[in-house]
Amino acid sequence: MNKVISDKVINRLTLYHSILIDYIDKNIEYISSPQIADLLHIDNTQVRKDIALLNYKGKCKVGYRVKELKLLIEDTLRFKTVKKAFIVGAGNLGMALAKYDNFEAYGFKISALFDNDIKKINSTINDKKIFSIDKLPELVIELDAKIAILTVPRTFSQQVTNFLVQSGIKYIWNFTPCVLNVPNDVQVWNENLIGNFLQFTVNHTNE
Amino acid sequence: MNKVISDKVINRLTLYHSILIDYIDKNIEYISSPQIADLLHIDNTQVRKDIALLNYKGKCKVGYRVKELKLLIEDTLRFKTVKKAFIVGAGNLGMALAKYDNFEAYGFKISALFDNDIKKINSTINDKKIFSIDKLPELVIELDAKIAILTVPRTFSQQVTNFLVQSGIKYIWNFTPCVLNVPNDVQVWNENLIGNFLQFTVNHTNE
Repeated sequence: MNKVISDKVINRLTLYHSILIDYIDKNIEYISSPQIADLLHIDNTQVRKDIALLNYKGKCKVGYRVKELKLLIEDTLRFKTVKKAFIVGAGNLGMALAKYDNFEAYGFKISALFDNDIKKINSTINDKKIFSIDKLPELVIELDAKIAILTVPRTFSQQVTNFLVQSGIKYIWNFTPCVLNVPNDVQVWNENLIGNFLQFTVNHTNE
Repeated sequence: MNKVISDKVINRLTLYHSILIDYIDKNIEYISSPQIADLLHIDNTQVRKDIALLNYKGKCKVGYRVKELKLLIEDTLRFKTVKKAFIVGAGNLGMALAKYDNFEAYGFKISALFDNDIKKINSTINDKKIFSIDKLPELVIELDAKIAILTVPRTFSQQVTNFLVQSGIKYIWNFTPCVLNVPNDVQVWNENLIGNFLQFTVNHTNE
């Protein structure tokens, strides 16, 4: 895939994909853009525009073939490409993510967890082993895992980030509420739960 | 607040806010827009534009007063307004969110959890009680909690959503990987972890 798809389109395509999975579960063969638009409370023309990006045209009056459209989205968003990651911080959120099996359908494989708590080290969660953080530099090479999922407490976030950078990690999916200071060749993706939540309350509720 | 602030701006303002907290921890009095921009690897003009929306001008050469800017963001994003919510589904993710104390600083108060597992019902997590889901309609009125945080397994998501809608809930923060079918007067905010992750891998990594 050469063209860049905007973040908003990627976000919507994954939602369309969820709808398609649901339709397949219900043995429904076709779906129309108004049906998708209705479920998401968005505009029909938006849905058609997004799907047009996939170079896929629906059939007049019956709509899109559910299975075909699903595969096309998977292909475009590269679900088949295995993306190996590891979790740093086996706290509540780290554990929840390790147990979240749904990730694998999207090509996202969590290979291991790292923590500094000796009570947790060497235990296993959802078939994933928790290792001592000291082992991280050698193990990420061995596991060929390139994406660090950061779920450590706030107070350790920068210190652990420095260690990840020193260990050669270039991609960090940051679940901590901190802005991480990293060199320019390291990509941080902030999973800004608070920011997402405030978008909801400030613009979309009367709270 | 009357003007609508775009979701992207809200997201960035919360990140600026995190940086300001860090500066306060370090007893630093002033911050400049290039300092903020550098940490987030974004453009300086973007930072200045966002902060201009708050009607706040920095001092020439020294930048913004950290404490003032922090308060201004809190005011704009209404951190002081208490937003009461409850968690539906006391699984791994529900438990992790219940334990996440950082939410309260943003005015976000989780009042209770609901589940259908009798082993969990009546236990307490982080001072929040887990109630039987049957009690939800009466308790949300009693607790005056308006936002449902949905963390049930995929297979129950629509069924539980229907129950929430019947119970008069108008705001759902959806952590399940499903698109929920709700009436037009119910607002769903999809916390699309997979979509967020794929934005990262498709556009921002070489994976």
